[in-house]
Amino acid sequence: MDYQLDDALPVLRRTPEVLRALLTDLPDHWVHATEGPGTWSPFDIVGHLIHGERTDWVPRVEHILRHGVAVPFPPFDREAMFTQSAGLSLPELLDAFGALRDENLERLAALRLDRAALDLQGLHPDLGIVTMRQHLATWTAHDLTHVGQVVRVMARQYKESVGPWRAYLPLLGPA
Amino acid sequence: MDYQLDDALPVLRRTPEVLRALLTDLPDHWVHATEGPGTWSPFDIVGHLIHGERTDWVPRVEHILRHGVAVPFPPFDREAMFTQSAGLSLPELLDAFGALRDENLERLAALRLDRAALDLQGLHPDLGIVTMRQHLATWTAHDLTHVGQVVRVMARQYKESVGPWRAYLPLLGPA
Repeated sequence: MDYQLDDALPVLRRTPEVLRALLTDLPDHWVHATEGPGTWSPFDIVGHLIHGERTDWVPRVEHILRHGVAVPFPPFDREAMFTQSAGLSLPELLDAFGALRDENLERLAALRLDRAALDLQGLHPDLGIVTMRQHLATWTAHDLTHVGQVVRVMARQYKESVGPWRAYLPLLGPA
Repeated sequence: MDYQLDDALPVLRRTPEVLRALLTDLPDHWVHATEGPGTWSPFDIVGHLIHGERTDWVPRVEHILRHGVAVPFPPFDREAMFTQSAGLSLPELLDAFGALRDENLERLAALRLDRAALDLQGLHPDLGIVTMRQHLATWTAHDLTHVGQVVRVMARQYKESVGPWRAYLPLLGPA
């Protein structure tokens, strides 16, 4: 499937609602469950998505428009949420993510990117030359990846409880 | 995390809403996208979940209560949806799934399973002896697995479009 803004925007728009549907009012140990030391909980993942809204997705669109390949993107801190989410509740994080996503989709719409703009190039600090289209496709794939991570973390809490059915549920990991 | 009904029920209750949040009003090619020949689309996955509500989850709870290990469960047809969803729209499937899930959670509540009931045994046609607890944990893990499959199928539509970012997005599969 070739990347088209009109396909991708509806997916980006609903991610906050998907996370609310998955997580609101769940017992707390689901929200803070992880896959072991050094791995992320659903709570951490929402914080990571918030940091992306603040410093990655639309800021890098604007960076490409302003600098092209002349200036690399500032590096993205994948683990900023461990300090930035401290003291916040999950509902606060979900509200913050929803508000930031709405604002960012408005900022993006205001830029009125046309097909030519999708071919513009930027400079990633590790990956090198990338295009606006690749960056925007990654925004959507990144959302879906982290929704997938939330359900994987949750499913794995039952990796022992499901007994022999584990053989049918590869998401739970090898026995 | 040990299986507890009180933890698992809130997850089961929200799966219809999660799927609505992910899929309602999305452009059709997301809904019918697959990972290639013989793989399932989001549309197929919702149909598979419907068939589970009709023939697997609560029916097997009742089967265990009635027969114990004396009679194996009737086999579950993993691909029944390819005929049963024919001619239906995604909104019809989402409504059917939501209604069946609500009914089944009421049927389950009416059975008032206590801790002793969770230790009851049943006979799976392939896996052999299983417990009620394992069966119920699998219901929840199965929901999460298929939500994970929906987002994986969607994410993989952009496996080429993301360009070099694919290296950071293992859900999209190896390059």
